[in-house]
Amino acid sequence: MATKCGQQSIMLTNPVRILSCAAVAGKKEAQGPLKHCFDILSEDSYFGQPSWEKAETEMLQRCMKRCLEKAPSKSPNPELIAGGDLLNQCISSAFAAKDSALPYLGLYGACSTMAEALTIAALLIDGGAYNAALAMTGSHFCSAERQYRFPMEYGGQRTPSAQWTVTGAGAALLSSVGGPRISCLTPGCIVDTGLCDAGNMGAAMAPAAYDTITKHFADTGRDFDYYDAVFTGDLGALGHDILQDLLQKDGLNPGLKYMDCGVLIYDLRTQDVHSGGSGCGCGASVLCGHIIPAMQRGVWKKVLFAATGALMSPLSCQQGCSIPGICHAVALEMEG
Amino acid sequence: MATKCGQQSIMLTNPVRILSCAAVAGKKEAQGPLKHCFDILSEDSYFGQPSWEKAETEMLQRCMKRCLEKAPSKSPNPELIAGGDLLNQCISSAFAAKDSALPYLGLYGACSTMAEALTIAALLIDGGAYNAALAMTGSHFCSAERQYRFPMEYGGQRTPSAQWTVTGAGAALLSSVGGPRISCLTPGCIVDTGLCDAGNMGAAMAPAAYDTITKHFADTGRDFDYYDAVFTGDLGALGHDILQDLLQKDGLNPGLKYMDCGVLIYDLRTQDVHSGGSGCGCGASVLCGHIIPAMQRGVWKKVLFAATGALMSPLSCQQGCSIPGICHAVALEMEG
Repeated sequence: MATKCGQQSIMLTNPVRILSCAAVAGKKEAQGPLKHCFDILSEDSYFGQPSWEKAETEMLQRCMKRCLEKAPSKSPNPELIAGGDLLNQCISSAFAAKDSALPYLGLYGACSTMAEALTIAALLIDGGAYNAALAMTGSHFCSAERQYRFPMEYGGQRTPSAQWTVTGAGAALLSSVGGPRISCLTPGCIVDTGLCDAGNMGAAMAPAAYDTITKHFADTGRDFDYYDAVFTGDLGALGHDILQDLLQKDGLNPGLKYMDCGVLIYDLRTQDVHSGGSGCGCGASVLCGHIIPAMQRGVWKKVLFAATGALMSPLSCQQGCSIPGICHAVALEMEG
Repeated sequence: MATKCGQQSIMLTNPVRILSCAAVAGKKEAQGPLKHCFDILSEDSYFGQPSWEKAETEMLQRCMKRCLEKAPSKSPNPELIAGGDLLNQCISSAFAAKDSALPYLGLYGACSTMAEALTIAALLIDGGAYNAALAMTGSHFCSAERQYRFPMEYGGQRTPSAQWTVTGAGAALLSSVGGPRISCLTPGCIVDTGLCDAGNMGAAMAPAAYDTITKHFADTGRDFDYYDAVFTGDLGALGHDILQDLLQKDGLNPGLKYMDCGVLIYDLRTQDVHSGGSGCGCGASVLCGHIIPAMQRGVWKKVLFAATGALMSPLSCQQGCSIPGICHAVALEMEG
């Protein structure tokens, strides 16, 4: 049974755990500091497919397949897929799920999608609807570039605050048994501070991360002392520093406990990614390739995964709209 | 507590009810047979806004506002919004939700989004996470045309099998008290029979409706005799007849009990909509404007609402991909 906790958080009383997870990454991510973390690395950015969109689908399929292969034998089979992606009409996740013969709930949380998928899958398992469910998402640099910015062939210049969409995916199988337990969820409100620069998503999303993380703390009585590590999804270096500033104004000083997946996934000094990684695949691949395996190795016992998303589109930007940010937080805990 | 029932259905044991609902419709819908059903009619397809996308946002906001106004005094306030739309990056629903100060779960189920939103909101209330939640979606003919087909100014010719995207929205406030009870859910699998004609969505979606409705019957032991009416979301006249044929091959003969919202919303003989209505707003506005109010008046006691969606994008069609269909079914029952 889930119980509302404070203004916006939900405590799970039934055990919902991450039974297995897998991460796929592309060539650039395979050259970064987390290269040893991913289950599947692809040198071929087409993943053997004729288009980048089909590559994204293929990547998600390989990721889900590997996640299920990694589950112990006699594990419960997934009964649902909850997932989404950045492409128009979320085609890569729908096409990836279409041969699964499983019920499919399509989600759109921009780069926060992994946390949204974990939230919905966890609540549906906690509530008794399913025994096991897959949460998945991913993004692809080339398909995202041509959709949101320019076709690759255009050779557009990127601003210093721009981020690099991660070619990567993450999938997690949730059930009542397994590894880290999902103890608490804080689904986020949309926060829009009026920023309009689509080349500076970190600044647009940082206030949403601040909103959700501080509400999570207020609701639960937890703080940075409670957690061994707190991760945002893809604020990048600039957004990371903005969030750090916002927290410090409240007297919160997480120090090195606070990290951003978009900062971790690349070497920002040498990989020409400007402010760092972004995209659904950023938080998802770092969670499933790095964070959860590290929890299982005993590196961290308590982690808050706060994936961030910018709910704009190229059209909303062209029409002069600001960029609404959102952040969903998922608390993961190893026990014993 | 939710309980899995058969292969794919979920029975809700805690009461989850539709406490209030509202529907908004545009000018063409206001000239159709359901003109007296909608709460708000707009002669102005711009809804007072400078663009069709902003009009869609405005329409969704008015719809949610009216839904909350219609709730009895002392009703529980919504604690969550679950919604989505057809636009790239689901901007109209995100922008409509952004000033609500409520947690927001963005969904993408194409035209099945209302059923997906009801499914998630109902399961989260049943599971104890929330006391009340808003499910909402909508679509706009002009924003959909320029995104999926051609800008209006192009004056493109439509095929006889084409459908007309409904300018309309629906919002429902779910809680443990109120009107029709959501008794059972059958979230759907993606069904792709290889059809590639984006001008014939009814044919692409009908097999998904068949799959979900027949699984719902098999899982629950219910049939067309159990229900007073069964509605698909937007198969249109062609899709309606294809589904009828598929059912009849199984010996199922629903007769007039089976209706399609896309057929009901327009006068197909005079309104030049070819095969009928489509879009998220079709099923949503007919459910919230026509079906639920009729249940409350005693017209029907037991209704199955099976909203259908085509999970394609213009790009997936351009790349030669087939059109994956999906259908989520929601059983609504008046008691006493």
